[in-house]
Amino acid sequence: MNQPDFQPIKVVALAGGVGGARLADGLAKVLPPEDLTIIVNTGDDFEHFGLFICPDIDTVCYTLAGLVNPVTGWGRRDETWTVLEAVSLLGGPTWFHLGDQDLGLHLERTRRRLSGQPLSRIVQHFCQVLGIRPRILPMTDDFTPTWVYTIQGEMPFQEYFVRRQCQPVVTGFCFQGADQASPAPGVLEAIHQADLVVFCPSNPWVSLDPILSIPGIRSAVASRPVVAVSPIIGGQTVKGPAGKMFTELGIPPSAAAVAHHYTGLLSGFVIDQMDSELVSEIQPLGVQTFVTDVIMKTPLDRARLSKEVIDFGIQIIH
Amino acid sequence: MNQPDFQPIKVVALAGGVGGARLADGLAKVLPPEDLTIIVNTGDDFEHFGLFICPDIDTVCYTLAGLVNPVTGWGRRDETWTVLEAVSLLGGPTWFHLGDQDLGLHLERTRRRLSGQPLSRIVQHFCQVLGIRPRILPMTDDFTPTWVYTIQGEMPFQEYFVRRQCQPVVTGFCFQGADQASPAPGVLEAIHQADLVVFCPSNPWVSLDPILSIPGIRSAVASRPVVAVSPIIGGQTVKGPAGKMFTELGIPPSAAAVAHHYTGLLSGFVIDQMDSELVSEIQPLGVQTFVTDVIMKTPLDRARLSKEVIDFGIQIIH
Repeated sequence: MNQPDFQPIKVVALAGGVGGARLADGLAKVLPPEDLTIIVNTGDDFEHFGLFICPDIDTVCYTLAGLVNPVTGWGRRDETWTVLEAVSLLGGPTWFHLGDQDLGLHLERTRRRLSGQPLSRIVQHFCQVLGIRPRILPMTDDFTPTWVYTIQGEMPFQEYFVRRQCQPVVTGFCFQGADQASPAPGVLEAIHQADLVVFCPSNPWVSLDPILSIPGIRSAVASRPVVAVSPIIGGQTVKGPAGKMFTELGIPPSAAAVAHHYTGLLSGFVIDQMDSELVSEIQPLGVQTFVTDVIMKTPLDRARLSKEVIDFGIQIIH
Repeated sequence: MNQPDFQPIKVVALAGGVGGARLADGLAKVLPPEDLTIIVNTGDDFEHFGLFICPDIDTVCYTLAGLVNPVTGWGRRDETWTVLEAVSLLGGPTWFHLGDQDLGLHLERTRRRLSGQPLSRIVQHFCQVLGIRPRILPMTDDFTPTWVYTIQGEMPFQEYFVRRQCQPVVTGFCFQGADQASPAPGVLEAIHQADLVVFCPSNPWVSLDPILSIPGIRSAVASRPVVAVSPIIGGQTVKGPAGKMFTELGIPPSAAAVAHHYTGLLSGFVIDQMDSELVSEIQPLGVQTFVTDVIMKTPLDRARLSKEVIDFGIQIIH
C-alpha cells in the first residue's frame, strides 16, 4: 500500500484523538512517509500523578505503530492494569485509565521532559523506537491546556472529557496560554511546503481549534488548499462529544455546521452519503464537496477514505 | 505474639532499609502496637520519572504489612515488571527497579504530595490501608536528600547506592537541607515519651545519621536510654555498604567502631556471638553489652532478637 498510484503530493494532516488517528493511519498507508506530516493536538495534555500525559499524541502514535487497542481506539492492545489496581487499593483516583505498558511511556516522557527535552523531540524519539515513519509533530512544545466552560463551571479538559464523561453542558472553551505559544519546530515549514492540508475527522472545538489557535498556524493553513473530513454524520458524531457541543452552543449539529465552523479555511469537504442533501448547503460557502462512506470500520476503510481524500484534493489543486 | 510477657514499655525504633525493617518487624511482633513508634530515614528519598520515591519508608511498610519480597528484602512479593519493560523498550533507565504494584504506591504518594499533603500524613494513610498498626513516622516532612562524597565526585544517594552499586570510594556525606528541616509531627513527642529508644541494625552513616541530623532529634534521643543493635558482625555488614564505608573512611569496620560512632548516645549495645571478644573494647565507653545471635534469617529470629533487645533495655532502665 506504500506505493501511491497518484503523483507525489506533500500532505499535512491535522489530527486529534481516535477518529483523527484512524484517518492519519490511512494516510500513512497510502502516502510515502516522507510526504506525510501529522500535526497533533496537545490541548488535552495534562499532569496526573506527577506524570505528563499526551492523550492525542499517544493515540496517534499507538495507532500508526499498530499497538492501539482496537476496541477502544485509545490505549494499548494486550494491556494490563496492575499499577492502577494498586493505586485503587490505596484509595487513589482511577477515572483516567492508565495501563501498565502505557504508563511506561508516560514515565519515560516525563523523565525526558524534566531533563529539559522539548515534547517534539521526545515524540520524534518515540516514533523512531516504535517504527513510525511519517513525521508526527505536536502542535506546540508549550503547555496550552484546553479548559471547558460549562454551566457547572470551568474545568480542565480531561476533567470534562473523562472524569465527568462530557456530561456538563458546554458554554465555551479556552486554550490557556495558546496566544503566547509557538508552533513546534517544523510545523509552519511543513504547512508552507504542503500541497494539501487535511483536517482529519476530529472534534472541531477541542481537537482542531486548539491547533489553529497557536499563533501562525491558522494563517499558514489558510494559505494552502485544505480538505476536511466531516466528523459529523447524520447529525451525530461517530465518537466523542462534538455533536453534543454544537447543540449546547446553539448550533444544530451537522456536516454543514462543521463547514461553517471552518469558514475561510476550506477548499473541499468530504461528507458521508447519509448527508448528501447537505451539498447544496455547503457549496454556496465556496467549498467543493465529495460524498463517500466516511465511517472507518476497518483499517481497509482508512486507506480507501484516505485515497479518496487525496484524489479529491488533487482534483481541487489542479 | 502480640501479648508481651514483660511489663509495658514504650519503644521508639530508628530504622533505615532492609535490616532496620526486619528488626522493626520483630518489635511489631512482640510489642502492643500502641507502644511502638518507628522513625524511618528519608534521606534516600528521591525523584525519578517525576515520581517521589521513599525507599526506606516503603521497605519498612512492605515488611510490616507482610508484602515485602522475602528474597531481596525490598520491593513487593509476587511483583510484575510490565512498566519498567516498557520504559526499557523506549530507551529509558532501568537501574532503579520499579515493580508494577510498587509503582502504584509511588504514583499515589506523588499525587498526594503534589496536592499538598505532608509525607507523614501520606505514610499514615498507607499504613491504615495496609493494616500496619504500629506508628511509622518519616524522620521529617522536608526533603533532605543524602549526598555521597566519593573520590569520583559527589552524587545523590541512589546514584551511589543502586546505579553505581556502592563502588565509588566514599570520602564523606551531606544531608542536604537537614540543618533547616524539622522533625515530622510526633517524632520528638514519641522520643520524649519513650522508655527505650532502639537503633535498628541499619547503616550508621546513611540510615541513622540522617535521622540524627534533623534538628532536635539527636538531643531528644540522647535524653533517653538507647540500645543499638550492631549492623556489623565479624567485621562485615550482613547487607549493604556500612563495612565498606568504615574502611574507606579509615576506620576498621567492627561492632566496636559502630559503638564509637554513636558515642554519647548509647546505654546498651547488642552484638553478635562472633564479636564477643569486643565486649572489653565497648564496655569502657560506658556502654553495657549483650551478646546474642544478631543475624535475622527468619521472621522468628526477628521476634526473638527483638524480645532480647527489649529485655536488655528493661534491664538497663532498672
